[in-house]
Amino acid sequence: MERNFRLTLAYDGTRYRGWQRQGNTPDTIQSKLENLLGRLLGQNVEIHGSGRTDAGVHAAGQVASFRADTDMDCSALLKAIREYLPEDIGALSLEEAPARFHARLSAKEKTYVYRVWNSDVPCVFERRYVYIYPAPLDTDAMRRAAEDLPGRHDFSAFSSGKKKGRSAERALRSVRIERVGEELRITYTGDGFLYNMARILTGTLLEIGSGERPADDIGRIFQSRSRAEAGFTAPAKGLCLMSVRY
Amino acid sequence: MERNFRLTLAYDGTRYRGWQRQGNTPDTIQSKLENLLGRLLGQNVEIHGSGRTDAGVHAAGQVASFRADTDMDCSALLKAIREYLPEDIGALSLEEAPARFHARLSAKEKTYVYRVWNSDVPCVFERRYVYIYPAPLDTDAMRRAAEDLPGRHDFSAFSSGKKKGRSAERALRSVRIERVGEELRITYTGDGFLYNMARILTGTLLEIGSGERPADDIGRIFQSRSRAEAGFTAPAKGLCLMSVRY
Repeated sequence: MERNFRLTLAYDGTRYRGWQRQGNTPDTIQSKLENLLGRLLGQNVEIHGSGRTDAGVHAAGQVASFRADTDMDCSALLKAIREYLPEDIGALSLEEAPARFHARLSAKEKTYVYRVWNSDVPCVFERRYVYIYPAPLDTDAMRRAAEDLPGRHDFSAFSSGKKKGRSAERALRSVRIERVGEELRITYTGDGFLYNMARILTGTLLEIGSGERPADDIGRIFQSRSRAEAGFTAPAKGLCLMSVRY
Repeated sequence: MERNFRLTLAYDGTRYRGWQRQGNTPDTIQSKLENLLGRLLGQNVEIHGSGRTDAGVHAAGQVASFRADTDMDCSALLKAIREYLPEDIGALSLEEAPARFHARLSAKEKTYVYRVWNSDVPCVFERRYVYIYPAPLDTDAMRRAAEDLPGRHDFSAFSSGKKKGRSAERALRSVRIERVGEELRITYTGDGFLYNMARILTGTLLEIGSGERPADDIGRIFQSRSRAEAGFTAPAKGLCLMSVRY
């Protein structure tokens, strides 16, 4: 009998070319999982993530779904998955899901955190998970700019994707900027994120924080709908998909 | 003019054969630092750590001292050190120290933390810094046993070193056991630690927590002065030298 499963994952994206399977390359999260589930269940398994994460981006709470014809109970299957996954991919939980549940199509909201190590004191233990940016940052200016981001907007300017007629409208619910020791943490929550969107938003906020662009630049960038008007794409390693709400 | 320096360091011990220089092997923390300081200052530099850390053990606040004949000011030298150290060794601070300061001989007290990941939920991001031990642990029994550890004792049974007439007496000031989420953290503070001592104390406490040995076993082990009576040597990766007090 075909059943539907919901799998919650954490991964250190450092070694991977992102979530999405790319031909026969084994070094994506999706292909690692599909290959493993295929072997464990003796059938081809197609797994859907809540969304793609770019090469080098991490996840603390990525959600994926897959269908499989198996009698195995969830705890036994979870145990087997944990045994065979490499140590930089962790299966946090596995449960049976309603037949209509789909990790991407059913997702209502996602939260990403971008971690900036804003100090010239070295960051040894967390070095794989932060973007090292030692120059001083005007966090007040960044917070003022961040207030102009939430809401339903056309985020074309903040995406490196090619649209081809697809809507670039997304609703960003909140952007929170907090300082935690030497670290600046930017938390984005929204109904969906375009390709590179969280990283370009971060690059733009960093350019505002460093004084390279004014704090009131966000409205102009939205209006332009032009990628060239927004800031740089902050490196993948600082970004982590924290959770997905359904 | 010869000056005396105090350098505070953090390192991820994973890639290294421990603190101490071993012949010409470049992969110890001491040799990395001595080679770098020698190049930067154009003279042979001998660096003394507060103590050796074993292969694979980490440090968040190791202290080292060295003498050098240089006019360079501390901030310029610190900047140069930071620029050339690999990303898994971080120079936290550098200051000039009184002539008689010696990182090992002047040390009064050290604090080590041993981190046990006590869950079958995978630990992805901190995996290099914790010992994965998923079996249930009776932390009450561990805490009762830990109460018998502080004080001045002969710690021979808790060391793998060969004594050769050297005193194995040390004063352990405190042992604290706390649960932080899925993690059990054991904090040891004392005036000095014998070879492998924090790791064998941890192994012994874990055997008490798992029920393999009684909670009142500590007194007997002290009296035996025999390594064979204590528990296993917990893996290096869970241990971190947190701070040194002078």
